[in-house]
Amino acid sequence: MILARVEGSVVATKKTGKMTGSKLLFVRPMVVDSPDATSLRPGSNTLVAVDQLGAGEGELVLVVQGSSARLGTDNKDLPVDAVVIGIVDTVDLKKKKIYQAA
Amino acid sequence: MILARVEGSVVATKKTGKMTGSKLLFVRPMVVDSPDATSLRPGSNTLVAVDQLGAGEGELVLVVQGSSARLGTDNKDLPVDAVVIGIVDTVDLKKKKIYQAA
Amino acid sequence: MILARVEGSVVATKKTGKMTGSKLLFVRPMVVDSPDATSLRPGSNTLVAVDQLGAGEGELVLVVQGSSARLGTDNKDLPVDAVVIGIVDTVDLKKKKIYQAA
Amino acid sequence: MILARVEGSVVATKKTGKMTGSKLLFVRPMVVDSPDATSLRPGSNTLVAVDQLGAGEGELVLVVQGSSARLGTDNKDLPVDAVVIGIVDTVDLKKKKIYQAA
Amino acid sequence: MILARVEGSVVATKKTGKMTGSKLLFVRPMVVDSPDATSLRPGSNTLVAVDQLGAGEGELVLVVQGSSARLGTDNKDLPVDAVVIGIVDTVDLKKKKIYQAA
Repeated sequence: MILARVEGSVVATKKTGKMTGSKLLFVRPMVVDSPDATSLRPGSNTLVAVDQLGAGEGELVLVVQGSSARLGTDNKDLPVDAVVIGIVDTVDLKKKKIYQAA
Repeated sequence: MILARVEGSVVATKKTGKMTGSKLLFVRPMVVDSPDATSLRPGSNTLVAVDQLGAGEGELVLVVQGSSARLGTDNKDLPVDAVVIGIVDTVDLKKKKIYQAA
Repeated sequence: MILARVEGSVVATKKTGKMTGSKLLFVRPMVVDSPDATSLRPGSNTLVAVDQLGAGEGELVLVVQGSSARLGTDNKDLPVDAVVIGIVDTVDLKKKKIYQAA
Repeated sequence: MILARVEGSVVATKKTGKMTGSKLLFVRPMVVDSPDATSLRPGSNTLVAVDQLGAGEGELVLVVQGSSARLGTDNKDLPVDAVVIGIVDTVDLKKKKIYQAA
Repeated sequence: MILARVEGSVVATKKTGKMTGSKLLFVRPMVVDSPDATSLRPGSNTLVAVDQLGAGEGELVLVVQGSSARLGTDNKDLPVDAVVIGIVDTVDLKKKKIYQAA
């Protein structure tokens, strides 16, 4: 799974039938990519994830991708490849708390 | 899922039998990759997606990839890994509307 | 799916039993990665794809990846993750024909 | 699979029901990316993996991704795409031991 | 599939039960990434693949990734995402033999 920050939302009226009612979030991956870094920084490939947990803008979430994403919704036949499965409270890195939800 | 812009089309007469009649779009991923950016910019890896929604050139679409793509068509046995599942109306980023369909 | 150009072939005598007789092509992804570009250019990660359509060297093909690749062959149990599902005739980009099979 | 180093942990109280009780590790891929290098170096895309083996911070682990990750847990329906399937003892590269667990 | 060179091995005593007895190779992807190049060069993301064919260090192998990897072993329930499915004899690129097994 990846850590991602909710940055906005996407609306698509015309979509495949199964997708009706799915809330679509625009999220940005958050990574620690320098060897010594101890804080998260925005990653580069933004994506769109289905959310059924009610995540709000600015929150850090856990996003599952690929076929497993379908198991993160209440409908295994949704044609989706990215779903929010958790709203993050804390991230600890090298014994330091680097993220704490507001 | 990723946001992508329809940029063209692909025609392949000789293809595996199951693919007969599938409309193939040439699409370009659209991302927000700089931390402060508030507009979409073209990404780098163009791909080909099946479309059953009738998306037109220049439109922003939602593309699902991997095995879930098959659930986005009316034939679960199509050997496809990228399908258009929605035509985007609006994208909001940090409370600003950064895309509005024409 | 991705567009790829057939550049060669791979022979492996010692392989898992199921793979016997599979023709293996060495292919190079073809992308349009600059925002204004209107022609395909070779991408960077070459791969090996199974071909049952008889694609020849220099031809542009459509390659499906991941689990869906298995549906592109006549044997759903082949341990393969990349298969040629079409031989491309034309690619249109921004209303310009940027590729036409010879 | 990839080699990854356990660097911390992630806590998410609000998550999809199936995920209750899953221990989430924050891990960093470890690669050898220069042709002549004979030691592991931290890679760039950190991820979050489920752990049921009790891996501790600083340990090198084997992480499986994608749908196969689900088979690495005791619940095939977990919506997860990265799971620790082994704690690494040694890595040999070009006949040299480049990693030995403490 | 990708071409990869066997560069070493990985030992993990503590692993999920299903993995018992699996031989784990440390492999490096081999690509042709410059448009005019006609030789393979080491790629950047090393990975760990299960081997049941007996590949030796220095050999060029064919690695299948993702869910299809499971079909490349004799146990479809192994939690693995990369498996060696062939030991390469020759690679031809633009009608030139660029690799020949020793």
